Amino acid sequence: MRATVMFGAGDVRIENVPDARLIEPTDALVVVTRAAVCGSDLWPYKKMETSPSGRRMGHEFIGIVEAVGSEVRKIKRGDLVVAPFAWSDGTCEFCQAGLHTSCLHGGFWGGTELDGGQGEAVRVPQADGTLVVLPTGKDHALMPGLLTLADVMSTGHHAALAAKVGPGKITAVVGDGAVGLCGLIAARRLGAEQVILLGRHPERIALGKAFGATDIVSERGEEAIQHFRELTKGLGAHSVLECVGQGEAMTTAINLARAGGAVGRVGVPQETDMPASQTAFYKNVTIAGGPAPARAYIEELMPDVLEGRIEPGRVFDYVASLDRVPDGYRAMNDRKALKMLIEF
Amino acid sequence: MRATVMFGAGDVRIENVPDARLIEPTDALVVVTRAAVCGSDLWPYKKMETSPSGRRMGHEFIGIVEAVGSEVRKIKRGDLVVAPFAWSDGTCEFCQAGLHTSCLHGGFWGGTELDGGQGEAVRVPQADGTLVVLPTGKDHALMPGLLTLADVMSTGHHAALAAKVGPGKITAVVGDGAVGLCGLIAARRLGAEQVILLGRHPERIALGKAFGATDIVSERGEEAIQHFRELTKGLGAHSVLECVGQGEAMTTAINLARAGGAVGRVGVPQETDMPASQTAFYKNVTIAGGPAPARAYIEELMPDVLEGRIEPGRVFDYVASLDRVPDGYRAMNDRKALKMLIEF
Repeated sequence: MRATVMFGAGDVRIENVPDARLIEPTDALVVVTRAAVCGSDLWPYKKMETSPSGRRMGHEFIGIVEAVGSEVRKIKRGDLVVAPFAWSDGTCEFCQAGLHTSCLHGGFWGGTELDGGQGEAVRVPQADGTLVVLPTGKDHALMPGLLTLADVMSTGHHAALAAKVGPGKITAVVGDGAVGLCGLIAARRLGAEQVILLGRHPERIALGKAFGATDIVSERGEEAIQHFRELTKGLGAHSVLECVGQGEAMTTAINLARAGGAVGRVGVPQETDMPASQTAFYKNVTIAGGPAPARAYIEELMPDVLEGRIEPGRVFDYVASLDRVPDGYRAMNDRKALKMLIEF
Repeated sequence: MRATVMFGAGDVRIENVPDARLIEPTDALVVVTRAAVCGSDLWPYKKMETSPSGRRMGHEFIGIVEAVGSEVRKIKRGDLVVAPFAWSDGTCEFCQAGLHTSCLHGGFWGGTELDGGQGEAVRVPQADGTLVVLPTGKDHALMPGLLTLADVMSTGHHAALAAKVGPGKITAVVGDGAVGLCGLIAARRLGAEQVILLGRHPERIALGKAFGATDIVSERGEEAIQHFRELTKGLGAHSVLECVGQGEAMTTAINLARAGGAVGRVGVPQETDMPASQTAFYKNVTIAGGPAPARAYIEELMPDVLEGRIEPGRVFDYVASLDRVPDGYRAMNDRKALKMLIEF
């Protein structure tokens, strides 16, 4: 079968790889119908060391179940399913607590051992715990929105929960990528009346406004801080969603938070240490977040997508076939595309 | 009057300073009857640069109100009062939210502008917002316990709240100083059945056991981790109280936390950056805490002290007069004393 393999920074190829197949009795074999390229895929795209064997890519996909192992009970051949970006058994202590990304028997797609989502088929471990059946046909118009439940929409939701967004909470979003924009959707969905998006990219700002951003801060440096102060009566935001992962963005997020506020971070931290620790401490700012337990959120968010109350599928502005994935990475890395949807 | 002044690392003296007096109409003048030396006073004691004018010390005191300004309504001459380690107006947005340490019109004792608690008298700004009247005589046997409400007991409580301690939550305490031990009291008070204290100092361990520690981890390095794993079934603690402030302690705290757990930090961070940021992220460990809004907790904790349900006053193991304060600092810095109580 064909799948996306990264061999080093800037080097993404579509390769022939061994066909996905059932191995464990708890596996399902899923033939992919839609997949996506994630902002987090750009981290290795920017700095992965050269690897002759390469690394399988992709952790967001929808597909049709082709076969299931002997111990799979809930998922059936023919089901249209969405996979969260981590697989999990659904039964361990952490899954029961809603933290499926820390499942004791779970893991993440791709790499050197497992299939990635950006390929024609995927072996899904712990199929009953991992997969969520979609109540639609495979080419339903809302496929893009449903696909965001695999990661970006669920991750935005996680950021908003970690930042304690709620009615009356002034919310700021750091990062105008797909996750930041989905975080904005999530913040509005959770009741935030004032949501401030930091960004300068005209198309992303326009989408942010469509998603409900009430204010945009596009300035840089001191001017940005001045503008932000005016918007928050000098006190800062109650809730800040950090959707980038670089230290600079984290510093910004902590500085934007008011005393007693919270930063929900979902951008994968690129540095070992967190900056502005003392600033956060003296303000009693809570730092929460991490990999989103998308599996815990999909059922909650899905009705809102199916009934059109939220439109996260609009983050996809580059739709193409698997062959075009290398172009998609390049366009996203150059910030010419926000997010790529792969159609099979 | 006489007061404690620090002139540099290791250089604490009792000096004659200008008498405390009313300045603002919202001030009270308090004649100190009990005060304390805090673990956080040891940070400048270890590394303060030499200053010819020096820095007034102390932020934990009980005293009798000698006079009040014309706008003070609640606090009266003759009241026996305890002061939290930050003064605050009690009315601003942050005070109303229970975060008095971020009061828009508040501040901290000592330094170069204000009286410190380790002196004969203190001008208390925002007296009505700051001071809490004690319902006892000035030499009541529970004075030590009541004095801990100014900082260490309230700070331990804050750490426990930030770490989300509650029934069924395995709790670990990093730091066997007075704050750590008070955090242990707070954790038990909030319902934690299993509380693990990390420490090696025999007397502090004994006190920790008296305060309700169920387990002690005294090993170092790998052995400590192994012991801790056994105590938590390999999963780590739900709640970790970081009561030191050095990066190494924070790294330990983050490593001890289970996925989805929380670290409540109240040790004043000594480094700009927080270590183990990625570890916290991948485990979805929340980092919360900061300077405790002691003013928000004093009324809640006081009945427990007065009725003997908690005995935080036992952290004082060095009781002496103001003249002996330099010795007290030295004893605490050498870890020969846990905490000094100053009697006037």
